[in-house]
This record gives sequence, C-alpha cells and structure tokens, in this order.
Amino acid sequence: MSKPLYKLSASEVVALTKSGKLSALIARVQERDPVVKAWSYFDPEIILASARALDQIPAEKRGPLHGVAVGVKDVIHTKDFPTQHFSPIYENDHPELDASCILTLRASGALIFGKTHTTEFATCQKGPPTSNPHDNNRSPGGSSSGSGAAVGDFQVPLALGTQTGGSTIRPASYNGVFALKPTWNAISREGLKMYSITCDTLGLYARDVSDLDLLADVFKLKDDVPPPSTPLDLTKAKFGFVRTYVWPKAQPAVTSAWEKAKELLVAAGAEVEEVDLPSEFDNLGVWHRNILHMEGQSSFLGDYLTSPELLDPWVIKHAINDDKTTRRVQLDSYDNIARLRPIIDSIAAKYTALITPSVTDEAPVLEEPLRFTGDASFNLMWTVLHLPVVNVPGFIGPNGMPVGLSLVTPRYTEQSLLHTAHAVEKVFAQGGWKLE
Amino acid sequence: MSKPLYKLSASEVVALTKSGKLSALIARVQERDPVVKAWSYFDPEIILASARALDQIPAEKRGPLHGVAVGVKDVIHTKDFPTQHFSPIYENDHPELDASCILTLRASGALIFGKTHTTEFATCQKGPPTSNPHDNNRSPGGSSSGSGAAVGDFQVPLALGTQTGGSTIRPASYNGVFALKPTWNAISREGLKMYSITCDTLGLYARDVSDLDLLADVFKLKDDVPPPSTPLDLTKAKFGFVRTYVWPKAQPAVTSAWEKAKELLVAAGAEVEEVDLPSEFDNLGVWHRNILHMEGQSSFLGDYLTSPELLDPWVIKHAINDDKTTRRVQLDSYDNIARLRPIIDSIAAKYTALITPSVTDEAPVLEEPLRFTGDASFNLMWTVLHLPVVNVPGFIGPNGMPVGLSLVTPRYTEQSLLHTAHAVEKVFAQGGWKLE
Repeated sequence: MSKPLYKLSASEVVALTKSGKLSALIARVQERDPVVKAWSYFDPEIILASARALDQIPAEKRGPLHGVAVGVKDVIHTKDFPTQHFSPIYENDHPELDASCILTLRASGALIFGKTHTTEFATCQKGPPTSNPHDNNRSPGGSSSGSGAAVGDFQVPLALGTQTGGSTIRPASYNGVFALKPTWNAISREGLKMYSITCDTLGLYARDVSDLDLLADVFKLKDDVPPPSTPLDLTKAKFGFVRTYVWPKAQPAVTSAWEKAKELLVAAGAEVEEVDLPSEFDNLGVWHRNILHMEGQSSFLGDYLTSPELLDPWVIKHAINDDKTTRRVQLDSYDNIARLRPIIDSIAAKYTALITPSVTDEAPVLEEPLRFTGDASFNLMWTVLHLPVVNVPGFIGPNGMPVGLSLVTPRYTEQSLLHTAHAVEKVFAQGGWKLE
Repeated sequence: MSKPLYKLSASEVVALTKSGKLSALIARVQERDPVVKAWSYFDPEIILASARALDQIPAEKRGPLHGVAVGVKDVIHTKDFPTQHFSPIYENDHPELDASCILTLRASGALIFGKTHTTEFATCQKGPPTSNPHDNNRSPGGSSSGSGAAVGDFQVPLALGTQTGGSTIRPASYNGVFALKPTWNAISREGLKMYSITCDTLGLYARDVSDLDLLADVFKLKDDVPPPSTPLDLTKAKFGFVRTYVWPKAQPAVTSAWEKAKELLVAAGAEVEEVDLPSEFDNLGVWHRNILHMEGQSSFLGDYLTSPELLDPWVIKHAINDDKTTRRVQLDSYDNIARLRPIIDSIAAKYTALITPSVTDEAPVLEEPLRFTGDASFNLMWTVLHLPVVNVPGFIGPNGMPVGLSLVTPRYTEQSLLHTAHAVEKVFAQGGWKLE
C-alpha cells in the first residue's frame, strides 16, 4: 500500500492486521495539532493503553471496528477522557461515564482516540481554536469543529459530532468530508450534553461512504425495506433538487456546485428535477429557532443557576428567555413541525433522494475574537424535521475550498440513503475537489 | 410544633432555622429502612458533609430549598452518590456527574439525601426490594418505588422520580402522596437514564401541594398566563371527568373514589361533567407501546452489546426488537400522537382541569419473585401526550390503602394545575384517606 498509513480509511484499518498504523496516526496528530488544533484532549498514553486492551481480544471476538480510531466531540461523555464542553465550568471535568454511543463503539472494537473541539455546549457561534486543515485562515465550521477538521486532515478516519442546527453537515462541507446526520434518535443521544431535545442528533464523520456504512451497521441503522445489494443504477434514479426558502443565501460557490451536480448526474444518466416545497415549509427556520430557544431554557437552567458568570452570553439568552418567547409559540412550533414530518417523508419518497445545499458558501475566513463558524441556514429544516442527511463533498469554491451537497431521504431510511450516496460519491468526485 | 421533626413539609423545613431536623430524618430512615427499603444508597456521612457545606452559606444567599432533604431516584446521576439503575452492570458505579435537575436543586439549597430504589433502568415491571410503607406486603408501585415510598413514609419531604409510562403518578397513588409529572421536557432530562426520549419525564414527589409549588418555582415552571394569586373559587370551577378507554380496568377502589370525588366537588359548589374523548384517543396505549419499544431499541443498544448477560429480559426485548416492530409503525405512532396533542390541549382548556384515574386499583400485594409494581394503563396516554398531571390522594380502598386521582391541564400550564390542585387537595381530604 503506497499511501501513508494515517490516510487509511476505517475499512482499510480493519483489514490491516499489522501494527504501526496507530503510531502513524498519533504522529500525524502530533505533527498537525499545532496548526489545526482539532483536539481538546489528546493523550497518547491513554490511547496506547486502550490499544493494548484491544490487542488482548482474540481474533474471533473482534468487532467490526477493531482498532479503528474515532475522534469524539467534547460534548459526549467518555470514561477515559475528560468531557469539557469548551466551557470553563467543566474545565478538566472527568465524570468517568461513557455515553451510550461510546458503549456501542467500544463494544464494536473502536479505539476512542481523544476529544475534539466544539463550541461551548455545541451552542453558540463563537468558535474554538480549531482551524480548517485546507486553509488555516478559515473556519472548520462548528459546532463539531474538531471532528470535521480531524477527519478532513487525516488525523482519524472516523469521528462523532452532533447536530442541533447544522453542526455536523456544515463542518463536513467545509472540511471536504462525508457526514451522516441520521434520523433523530436513531442513535441514542444519552450521554451527550443537551441543548434541544427535539433537534440534537448524533452525527458521524468519515472520508468515504463505505466508512459511513461501517458506522451505520454498528449503530444498527436498518430500514424496514433494505436497499438492494447491487449498486444503484443511476439511469433509474431520480433526484429532487430542493432549493428551499434559504436559497437566496446561496453564494456562487454553492450555486455553481448546484448546477455542476445536476450536469454530472444527468451525464451519468439520472433524472433530475427541481422540487418546490409547500409554502408552510418556509416557516421552518423560525419554528426551529423557537424550539431551540425554549428547549435551551430548560437545558441550561442548572448551569445558569450554578455558574452564570462562566456562561457565554448566547447560552444565557436561552436560560433566561431573554426575549420572552411564550410557551404558546413553542407549542405551535412543535405542532406545526410535527404536521410537516409525514408530508416531507412523502415528498422525499418520490425521489431516489432529495438534494439540497449543505452550506451557504465555502468555509468563512476566521476573524478574531468570534471565530464565527458559518451559516447553518440550509441545515435547520432537515434537523427539526428529523430526516437523515448525508453530506457528499466533491465541489470546489472560488477560494479553492471544498463544497458539498446534502442528500436527504425519509425518516429511518439510512441504508437507502447510504446506498444512494455510494453512487453519488462517484459522480460528485468529478466536481473538482479531491481530499488529499 | 408538636409533630415529630421528620414529619415536616419542605416549606416547614425551610422556615425552621434550628438544627436537629436533619438528625431526625436520618434516624427516621435508619429506623424504617429495614422494612420499607426505599434506599439503594444511603450514607449519613455524605449527607452531613453536604449539610455542613450548606451551613456555610450566609443567610442572605440561601436558596428556596435551603436544607431540604430530597431523595433521588437511582436512574438520575448525582455527583456525591453512586448511580446504579438497579442494574448489575452499574453496581457501585459512580460517575461524578450531576444531572441537570440536580444542579438546579443544589443551586436552590436542597440537600441531596441519597438514592432511591427503581426498577432496572426504570423499565421492567420487576420491582426492587421496596415495600409500601402503609402495608409492607404491598407494592409501593414503580418504577419510582423508593421515591414514592420514602415520601409516603416521612423519610424525606421531597423526592425525584421519573415517568415513562406511569412511574411517577402510580407510586404517588399507592403511597398516598402528591406528585407532579410536568409537561415533557419542562424540566431537563439530561443526566437521567434514557428509556423513551419521547416519554421519559422527570417527576416530583411531595406530601402537599405547597411543596410541589416550591419545586415548580425552583424549576421555573411558568405558565404564559399565570393563575390569580387568590385561591380558586370552586363555585366557578368546572371539572371534566375523563374515563378514557382504560376505564374497564378500573377496580372498585377506583370507581368508588371516582364517584366520591364527584360528590365532594359538587358539594363544594363545583360543576362536574363526564368527557368523552374522540375515538382516536383509544389508540394511545398501543401507540405508546410502539414508541417505547422502538426507542428502547436505540436506548439499550450500548448496554446490550456490552453486557447482554446482565440485562433483564424485558430490556433485551427492546434492544433486539423481539417482535420486529417496523419503523413505519413507530413513525405512524409518532405522527398520530403529535396530531392529538393540540386537540387534547383544546379539550383540557375547556375545563378548570380534567380528572382521570391515577391507577386501576389500590397497591397490589407483592408476590415473589416478580414483585410486580402494578398497572400503569391510566397514565400512559397523558405521558405520551406530554400534558402535566398531578396526583391528588384522599381516597381509600377496600383494603385500607390510599387511592388518588389525576388532575390534568394543557401542556405548559403547571402553575394553573397546581393552583387548582390546592383547592382540590382540601376537597379530596374528605375522601377517607389521611397520610399520618
């Protein structure tokens, strides 16, 4: 194998039985961390201890992720590393608890590699120290800043993020990697810091669709009707391009990716059409905001009463309900969105997948002190509607940065979504961007 | 004050500034625990250390619950006590983490008194060693067995439970105490073991409505339109008695409480009428079951993969989806219930409160080895519809055990619900049961 060991995908790592791959990854992190700063906690001694424990497992009992390094966003509890939430309240806090998803990963042989940087509690727009590996003056996105950057920089093949607005899919686009935001609660969120119970979703990062398959299998994401075992025949596929109410925010990097994607899919024999959603869907950004704001109130009450002086003003706004949003507004937002979920399922079911922007633009230039992590507008509606989304990279913006598009399918159809993503991955690979 | 110190309500404890009340409570637990067995973890040394820390807080900075002992169901993480979930997997497990609700209680001056017994992960019907304090041969209910029993036995004035089916309200009825199951997520569930994300709700126990008011204030349960500061005038009140589809399960203990409640309210000048819900509501038990089963699948995957041999078969059924419930069935259950939430809000809003049974019967006689904690049928629909419920005790069954009824109001109207409960508390106090 000619490529450096740290560039191996998770599937390749599993297939590799020789040692050495681990030290290659650790060296990669040590080399790159001064610039990319993806990690909030990284300790090779702990990693090596975990690896030695994995080595003791007899070959026949090894799990599907045996020895694969996984970065974990630092709002997810891990027994062996502190969980600090990028909050001074939780500096060096180490409650020795594995989130449910970490239990599942460990049972599958994964090597928890360290904690990756996040915005405070995965909420506010103020970014952590992490830079975009492809241009260190630009943002890696957020709130899953470190996970997106670490995977995009070949520091780990897999990482966990979370998404409440666009915190998994946006960093995937900015860092030129794949991500799956599954159906809400398809993977347990127990052990993750809570912001919005209705929106928070565990997200998965990888550098190709096969590695997302691995993770989807481990987390038992099964459709009622699984996709065929043969690859998708694009000449029988029909994609629904959905601009949504957010479209006016799309910058040239995105509108050109949009047109290019259509061309490439059509050239591959697929049918594409533009889909207009009913006008009620235009309210989803406002309803999403209402829910986050009011659910954030109960989520952050305990921290607010305990240490108000250590909270970001963005978090405090939620805790005190600064604009006096009413429960009526919150309940109407819940009920209206709930009504649209089966409707968007039906619309999405008419297509092989819906395609929609992952971002408004390439990764923004970092500006101190906010280090703004970018605009999540295109992601919000899919998060609150609970549909699974995959970011497929492949396009390139005027500044040479990666741009991805989102594939979306009905709730609880992750296997079909990934099946489709395999075919689309190959097509979008001709879009001008290559991760290397 | 002539009553024993351990019988003080939370409000009385806050008013009391002398020492001695704490040792009275500890002595009460030590005297009663061999019989009632409400506690899974109880350590006077830890309590005394917390109490000494609270003593250091200057009078002007003391919170509304200063020094009040609160029992905590052992599925809720506490920094100072182990959290064992009545599961051999978590025996002696002690992640040093406070659930969000514990942060709020501590910031309000509460004294976390210990961990109370639960069924395994607050799921299966197999009861812990706890007995009903009013008849040790009977169940205290579940899954919040220890919290209901500890409050009913004057071991603590306040306790936390959780409710996924009927796990807060049913034990309240069986132990003759008050309980508030608030609107879903009105209090953060972060730091609670997860069973069903759609149903799990933190529950609050007390021995009178004033103490529930204290807790509701601490947790910032605020209506858009707060109730008047004057007591409810029952001659202007109208109660909707809702039998629901579960009614055929109601035993004489409950049907007689039902009739007595109507008589007493009418005698107090209130209007009462029977309410028939639309027939769609008859499906709520089935839909609730579908959601629990499928959400339990993702909730217990991590534990199942890690330690299948240590799980109760009831939990395993969820983890493996033993009956192959489909995602279609799960999604239809979600969407159907979501459609009924605004409808039941509108129905409930026509009345001062809805009144419905809390239980099917008095507390059942304990039978080894299951120690069945009783039938939650009457509670399920309100849990999954997300409406707040208060159990008001006051009635007595043929075996001399307490029987309560549930008051229900629309989502996010806890203050109005408690305002009504104050008036109903006095009326139901003539029902034949008195906690003493």
